[in-house]
Amino acid sequence: MTSEQVNRQVILNSRPQGYPTGENFKIVEGDIPVPGEGQVLVRTLWLSVDPYMRGRMSDAPSYTPPHPVGKTMPGGTVGKIVVSRNASFPVGTFVEVGAGWQEYLVSSGRNLRKLDPSEAPLSTALGVLGMPGLTAYHGLFEIGKPQPGETLVVSGASGAVGAVVGQLGKLAGCRVVGIAGSAEKVSYLEEELGFDGGINYKTDDMESAIRQQCPNGVDVYFDNVGGETTDIVMENLAFRARMIICGQISLYNLEEPDLGPRNLRQLLVHQASVEGFIVGRFADRAEVARARLTQFVREGKITYREDVVDGLENAPGAFMGLFQGTNFGKMLVKVSSENE
Amino acid sequence: MTSEQVNRQVILNSRPQGYPTGENFKIVEGDIPVPGEGQVLVRTLWLSVDPYMRGRMSDAPSYTPPHPVGKTMPGGTVGKIVVSRNASFPVGTFVEVGAGWQEYLVSSGRNLRKLDPSEAPLSTALGVLGMPGLTAYHGLFEIGKPQPGETLVVSGASGAVGAVVGQLGKLAGCRVVGIAGSAEKVSYLEEELGFDGGINYKTDDMESAIRQQCPNGVDVYFDNVGGETTDIVMENLAFRARMIICGQISLYNLEEPDLGPRNLRQLLVHQASVEGFIVGRFADRAEVARARLTQFVREGKITYREDVVDGLENAPGAFMGLFQGTNFGKMLVKVSSENE
Repeated sequence: MTSEQVNRQVILNSRPQGYPTGENFKIVEGDIPVPGEGQVLVRTLWLSVDPYMRGRMSDAPSYTPPHPVGKTMPGGTVGKIVVSRNASFPVGTFVEVGAGWQEYLVSSGRNLRKLDPSEAPLSTALGVLGMPGLTAYHGLFEIGKPQPGETLVVSGASGAVGAVVGQLGKLAGCRVVGIAGSAEKVSYLEEELGFDGGINYKTDDMESAIRQQCPNGVDVYFDNVGGETTDIVMENLAFRARMIICGQISLYNLEEPDLGPRNLRQLLVHQASVEGFIVGRFADRAEVARARLTQFVREGKITYREDVVDGLENAPGAFMGLFQGTNFGKMLVKVSSENE
Repeated sequence: MTSEQVNRQVILNSRPQGYPTGENFKIVEGDIPVPGEGQVLVRTLWLSVDPYMRGRMSDAPSYTPPHPVGKTMPGGTVGKIVVSRNASFPVGTFVEVGAGWQEYLVSSGRNLRKLDPSEAPLSTALGVLGMPGLTAYHGLFEIGKPQPGETLVVSGASGAVGAVVGQLGKLAGCRVVGIAGSAEKVSYLEEELGFDGGINYKTDDMESAIRQQCPNGVDVYFDNVGGETTDIVMENLAFRARMIICGQISLYNLEEPDLGPRNLRQLLVHQASVEGFIVGRFADRAEVARARLTQFVREGKITYREDVVDGLENAPGAFMGLFQGTNFGKMLVKVSSENE
């Protein structure tokens, strides 16, 4: 699937107004870079597209500077060393790296994490055993602190983060209710992931569904979505509830501030808390979390689902689909074959 | 000021629609109760009126059941034992008790806290050394966890809670900015309480005032007010900011939900947290907090201001004024004289 002799890249062509469109991206071709002494050439196998990238495309203030227009889109990747001038990374080594939306990257090795393909499929390094899995693990356990018997509600529940959150909640002894955007996704939560209940926010009466599925209120709410879904959950908090703000995907493409009820009084009445986080905050505990997630996946206690498109040229479409909920599971772009 | 031979009481006459009015209250007269064996008769000296009472008047769900219509309004009081059949509480003893809006109460003694008038003025047991002071202390230190050099913003800053919060923040080494509703109050914060800055939310351009007074963002926000003030502060949070929801007085009298920008994304971007609390949660540490506050008051490190009206019949007006900001300092009703 990779081109011969060129390094195809997807650059940020313009900043989106509202939802991103194809015009915000542009595919360009450059020379394949040549590694110098101590460097390696990494060929991209898998590219992750994630909702957070929408923030990078914007020039609104956020936790990282805006991504420059004209530069290769950023993103996590899995790659294979195809040329090596660094003895620590021989040709054929698989690595996790943030190469961005391109086919080749030269690296000194410092930003590479070696992957063992016998331990888990390589693509999981971008999903359940990568940033989304760690996000789920740290957000739930460091901030949510769920206890057995508590009710955990997850929005964006069939997504890369949400599906892990819910399964971890079950392992922690919680009643787990997931909110997703199709009957098929809700069925997946209930039938395959072992959630206690699922709610289809597009067709169910959310207010009565939450009340019915969470008769003792919501102790922990892991929010990937925001907006009206979150407003309704906030009407149903339990005493000392904890809300984890991981994502607010329903708001990322709005040009004007979205209006909703001012509901901080719910926090007062229930003595509840809300906290937002970025996974990097917990970097010092990432390896412990990854080891546990790896073990859970091996034991079949956590399962995962991937939604794969082929070819770098399809990355913009895969990314744009995240905001329509067209993906089902962790969205990945297969840029080249592992066996080439 | 007390009537002869009768126990005047202010009862909840009807539930308010929106702002409370005089018709929601009714003054009734009953017999002065007679203490039985082991009991005492307490004459009310001071009655505290506080914003939280608005919640009790409503039948909307909250952290306590609605107060029944027809019953004496609840509230903290300072009283004097005038008849005693309990050796632990001789006649003349001063006590803190929740007698509610009435002139006399019979008590077994269990709900009484003895006060030493040589330690501090009795009225402070309802203000800086009572529920409002403890609210300030616990909310700021247990939830806000301010550090020297951080910026603390307080809304409702000249009120019973806010004024203590700001002074404690100064003692903790913070830059303290207070938001209040008149030039006189702002001047009080800056000139008498030692705040680093004050903002008049009625006349200042809040957005630029917050940015100017908090150039490094807001690390700790102690919120008594809610509404648009809080929206603007949330646009200016620092990394890992902590918001403490103590009150939302701007919303208590609204019949319809107030709409504002959905701004939980601010928590994500800044990895910030929000927590609501009720002072009773920290009851096990109240005596430590009260001892410290008492010491600070004695040393002149914390000063306080009281706004006193005379006579139980003026309690409804004093209470209603809280929602217009007509009080300046801790609002108290002097029900009878300490020396009678």
